[in-house]
Amino acid sequence: MKRFIVVGHKAATSGDFKLDDMAGGAGRLDILLRCINSALFLSHSIRRDTEIYLVLQGEPNPPRTIRVNGSEVRYLNPDERSTGALVRNALLKELDDEEIRSSPGIYVSKRSFVQVLDDLAPVSRLVYLKEDGKDVREQAMDGDLTFVLSDHQDLTESEEAELIARDPLTVTLGPLSYHADHCITVMLNELDRRG
Amino acid sequence: MKRFIVVGHKAATSGDFKLDDMAGGAGRLDILLRCINSALFLSHSIRRDTEIYLVLQGEPNPPRTIRVNGSEVRYLNPDERSTGALVRNALLKELDDEEIRSSPGIYVSKRSFVQVLDDLAPVSRLVYLKEDGKDVREQAMDGDLTFVLSDHQDLTESEEAELIARDPLTVTLGPLSYHADHCITVMLNELDRRG
Repeated sequence: MKRFIVVGHKAATSGDFKLDDMAGGAGRLDILLRCINSALFLSHSIRRDTEIYLVLQGEPNPPRTIRVNGSEVRYLNPDERSTGALVRNALLKELDDEEIRSSPGIYVSKRSFVQVLDDLAPVSRLVYLKEDGKDVREQAMDGDLTFVLSDHQDLTESEEAELIARDPLTVTLGPLSYHADHCITVMLNELDRRG
Repeated sequence: MKRFIVVGHKAATSGDFKLDDMAGGAGRLDILLRCINSALFLSHSIRRDTEIYLVLQGEPNPPRTIRVNGSEVRYLNPDERSTGALVRNALLKELDDEEIRSSPGIYVSKRSFVQVLDDLAPVSRLVYLKEDGKDVREQAMDGDLTFVLSDHQDLTESEEAELIARDPLTVTLGPLSYHADHCITVMLNELDRRG
């Protein structure tokens, strides 16, 4: 399994945002929607072996974690607006402490970044995508992998400390800094090439 | 200079589409908007050495070519909706035979795919991104490069014949088929790594 965790530091945590204003009023939710696209779309198919966690930390109900599982997901299209509608539907669900299914392959919970790390670290190798890491093309990686990224802001010091405490690999994709969704695309290409 | 040509076989050629329906009524314009994002955005900056040509072939006024130049572009944001608004503004312009500027760095003309090839082939090496090409990591490339891609449909036989007649390099990015915007992201990462 390939997994991605993307932290949205200001991303909306209720479903009352407008689909016309996802880059503004929804706290740069647009970035996270493009990450769903990058993680799951192949030409004319879906990456069934891939899953993405969006950790939303904006107002009014932080945290919320949206999980999109490629092996189950339905009704997903590549454009931002329709993906935003699916995420909004998930954020409109009434939540207790359990993760619930919003639509096929799309789940929502109150999990925090640390809780997501705690859930995944025992079953998956964490990989921190960061500018000063080891060149990805020279880094051995296999098995279940979970790549951790942030939105347009870096991980906070405390988030980074929580991640580092779980002993991730730290890799870089190249000499320039990319948007999170572009990082996902480049990372998956590297894994695709390894077969 | 790095350039991308993306053919939108059904993409709208007038500005009367709705920003809420760019994946539908605008003939999968959403794909082309994501290509603009992939070609031009770095984290917190723009690729000033990159240019993208969108060749729109849908109704009602085909062809239209939108050119976005990274060294000049302004008011460009990464989300699909705001980029769609800039493209719509360009398509609302009255056109004669000359290319005209719609907004800083965004130009529109009646050029066809073949005319764009004719304009670029004398100054730039054409590169066809295609599944059965040579592995990009083993292909020498430098100087001014123009990468040619298609939307969710392959180039037509006649489009491909026009391209092949201009002796492009043909390269592949990996073992799987990707969306056009993902191809651009992977291609640019490869070039970034070569410096």
